[in-house]
Amino acid sequence: MRVVLSPEQDRHEPRWWVARGRPRPCPERPERAERLGAAARAAGHAVVVADRFGAGPRAAVHDARYLAFLETAWERWSSQPDAGPEVVPNVFPGPLFDSYPGSVTGQAGWHMADTSCPVGPGTWEAATGAADAAVHAAEIVLHGAPSAYALCRPPGHHAFGDRAAGFCYLNNAAIAAQHVVGATSGRVAVLDIDVHHGNGTQAIFYGRGDVLTVSVHCDPADFYPFFGGFAHETGTGEGEGRNLNLPLPRGTTDTEWLAAIDRAIGVVREFDPAVLVVGLGLDALASDPFAAFAATVEGYAEAARRISRLGLPSVLIQEGGYLGPELGPALVAFLGAFEAP
Amino acid sequence: MRVVLSPEQDRHEPRWWVARGRPRPCPERPERAERLGAAARAAGHAVVVADRFGAGPRAAVHDARYLAFLETAWERWSSQPDAGPEVVPNVFPGPLFDSYPGSVTGQAGWHMADTSCPVGPGTWEAATGAADAAVHAAEIVLHGAPSAYALCRPPGHHAFGDRAAGFCYLNNAAIAAQHVVGATSGRVAVLDIDVHHGNGTQAIFYGRGDVLTVSVHCDPADFYPFFGGFAHETGTGEGEGRNLNLPLPRGTTDTEWLAAIDRAIGVVREFDPAVLVVGLGLDALASDPFAAFAATVEGYAEAARRISRLGLPSVLIQEGGYLGPELGPALVAFLGAFEAP
Repeated sequence: MRVVLSPEQDRHEPRWWVARGRPRPCPERPERAERLGAAARAAGHAVVVADRFGAGPRAAVHDARYLAFLETAWERWSSQPDAGPEVVPNVFPGPLFDSYPGSVTGQAGWHMADTSCPVGPGTWEAATGAADAAVHAAEIVLHGAPSAYALCRPPGHHAFGDRAAGFCYLNNAAIAAQHVVGATSGRVAVLDIDVHHGNGTQAIFYGRGDVLTVSVHCDPADFYPFFGGFAHETGTGEGEGRNLNLPLPRGTTDTEWLAAIDRAIGVVREFDPAVLVVGLGLDALASDPFAAFAATVEGYAEAARRISRLGLPSVLIQEGGYLGPELGPALVAFLGAFEAP
Repeated sequence: MRVVLSPEQDRHEPRWWVARGRPRPCPERPERAERLGAAARAAGHAVVVADRFGAGPRAAVHDARYLAFLETAWERWSSQPDAGPEVVPNVFPGPLFDSYPGSVTGQAGWHMADTSCPVGPGTWEAATGAADAAVHAAEIVLHGAPSAYALCRPPGHHAFGDRAAGFCYLNNAAIAAQHVVGATSGRVAVLDIDVHHGNGTQAIFYGRGDVLTVSVHCDPADFYPFFGGFAHETGTGEGEGRNLNLPLPRGTTDTEWLAAIDRAIGVVREFDPAVLVVGLGLDALASDPFAAFAATVEGYAEAARRISRLGLPSVLIQEGGYLGPELGPALVAFLGAFEAP
């Protein structure tokens, strides 16, 4: 399978985030993509560098003001006296206040839903590189390949139309899905199997009838993103019935995980999309540092087989999956089983 | 003037906050209240310990769910593995998501608007003590004294009905104002001269016709709280015309500051309240660490004279004002000039 990545990915080096009340080193490291790329190469997949597609594809999903913020924030931030090395929000809009702030500190709170998505000097290049990798993989599929994989880093599925969240800046899967809609006028399904709910992707398409969003993830009752990902969220307006959340308890093993993925596959089949976008998080592994689920490498292979048997042209988009011992093996198992189910 | 304070104030010891992208020591220290109390005592004011007033006064202003969170959060938080010593939010509700979270991490993001209001083991006792000091000062005025001063710490004016923000947990000024409304059925004006906009107080009374809120503060275009405090925010429904914001530029000196306070005084006079609540922030001083305005100790005395000449029964509530050399002197100047204008 062709593997698309952007060499700019390693220019994004977030330093710290706040978790359980303490500043801690950020787990979303450049080494993630290095390991994934090396594993894919070693397994014989052809790795190609993402083309640049300009501002169009990201502007079709994200708010212009948000994109301008992401592109300029670090430089504006750095001109402040005593500024830290990254843009980190420290104040968020409360109720009743709807004035768009003029300052970079205010805009950081406006455009960032949490403290885990700092903007450093290389973030814009890395994020746009990741989005272009997603578009490039979509292009490969639009040109006839049965599947392609975009090794996107930073990941994308927590990014909303107008704000960053959860290590994510540009919603790579949404950008790929929208690119396919734009190119084909066909329907697209997004199936997200990251252990975290794909809340940004859900929000972007929540009122849309032409894009189905399905997410299998750890129950947000006590897991990120906390405020969304519940079963009762089914879409609105033309999107009513076009969003399916399948939350599962902590500790979920392959059997239950694959059963939920089967249910998701059934809903995708019924929707009958022209193209499938898979949000491929590898953090459902028992060996992932987040340790929410107990999936195995063979579980990922089996998930790939089942999704692949839909027979849909498929754009695979890397989401989460952190520095554990099975990160590379799970990717290789998934890609191999997807190609030869 | 009688000075009311709660000895519980020093049980609240926030450790750090995020500012300009870095974790930094929190400037809202117990020493603030110690210095203010010592200065007031040295100037001959009678210092009394706040009575306890139970849950009623705070529940008249704050959401029950929020109060339950504040009271229980630290204990629940501390039972998590590897939890930091304070409740600090790290994820905030985004758009489209309205499910109240079950976990303490989710609730922290729901009930805290920023990272500057951590909840530690003594925060609840300190915050309720400060609120009771405000109620006690209101009681002194309701019993006929022309004025009383509540040395509230933590401060209150950024606290919303359902969330903490900006070093604030319970909105002491709003609780005092509401206590007076409940006791007298009369109208109350809140005049906030802290250098930061009193966004929580504004929000709490935004739809109310019986409480006027007026705030003189540094322009939020590039200053906390960033998202509110603009001149166009005038109230809604029955509260239309009952909120006045007077933002001033950074560097504002006594002359312009007092001119804005004069304008505020005129609006208060026209409203003709039964009681005035003054949000007494001492951080407009040039010597305050926030250094937004350039007011002087004599400027504070003159502000006190002008407000006092309204001739209204007045409850003075301590808001901000940080560890600079003129913190105590400015308080003493204000209280003295207020009593003998």
